[in-house]
Amino acid sequence: MSFHDATVPAFQQILGALSGILTKAEAHCKAKNINPDVILGSRLYPDMLPFSKQIQLACDFAGKSCARVTHGEVVAVPDTETTFEELKARLAKTIDYVKAFKPAQFEGGDAKDVTFPIGPSNTMTMKGQQFLNNFAFPNFYFHAATAHGILRHNGVEIGKRDFMGVS
Amino acid sequence: MSFHDATVPAFQQILGALSGILTKAEAHCKAKNINPDVILGSRLYPDMLPFSKQIQLACDFAGKSCARVTHGEVVAVPDTETTFEELKARLAKTIDYVKAFKPAQFEGGDAKDVTFPIGPSNTMTMKGQQFLNNFAFPNFYFHAATAHGILRHNGVEIGKRDFMGVS
Repeated sequence: MSFHDATVPAFQQILGALSGILTKAEAHCKAKNINPDVILGSRLYPDMLPFSKQIQLACDFAGKSCARVTHGEVVAVPDTETTFEELKARLAKTIDYVKAFKPAQFEGGDAKDVTFPIGPSNTMTMKGQQFLNNFAFPNFYFHAATAHGILRHNGVEIGKRDFMGVS
Repeated sequence: MSFHDATVPAFQQILGALSGILTKAEAHCKAKNINPDVILGSRLYPDMLPFSKQIQLACDFAGKSCARVTHGEVVAVPDTETTFEELKARLAKTIDYVKAFKPAQFEGGDAKDVTFPIGPSNTMTMKGQQFLNNFAFPNFYFHAATAHGILRHNGVEIGKRDFMGVS
């Protein structure tokens, strides 16, 4: 079992699936004559983050987590996307970034300390394995599934198979 | 890196967190004089599964996935829960079940084939590692995050920290 295999394919699958649900959301807007901005800014509750931010955060948790467990440079990506097309480009770029990591870069990373920011002024340190399982994955899947839930709530015809990327 | 470490703590964390959000949902119902059945039966869209089923499925994906990758008996748990308390008992039982797996039971399971049902009449076979990352985790987190989203949408005062179990 390699730490790379435990990490990269999981992110790849869901990032690809999110691109698929964006395509369906865009088609839904066209078919129903809905302004895409309505969906992109939609939330499940007024104090939650909107759809577009959920996608941006899913990208961040995938990309930055790979950088952290391989002890590479953590690159901050500005959140500039305002259309479905731009969000799909961000997802595509993140998929390419994640796919470019080599298994050798992950070797031993499961047992090495990872120090990462928690909120604006604190940091936390965990072993790579624990960081992946108890921080990176739950955050990543949280934003991905919330993005799915927002579209579902708005009537976009998707289901769990779309979330899994098998539809 | 052990396959057990990649599996059990992840399930444990989120199952425990779900128990915490159930406690908050129950308190919310009491404070706002809401019939708990309304929340337990709530959905993000009419053709989605209700809150209680999301919790039951999260339990199933945690418990059954551990059984599958360790090649133990896969036990079907009937979905009989109709109250917050009963759902919390199901979560507690699932946490105990998952915690009882020993690291030795997982040894080598990442490279062994797992055959599991896909829908009512099909099966699929994957290596244990792939099964965990590309099937068990995305399904598990999907239902956990959807449960969280349903509560959030209904005004229960929770956030991502509750989903992570750090609140």
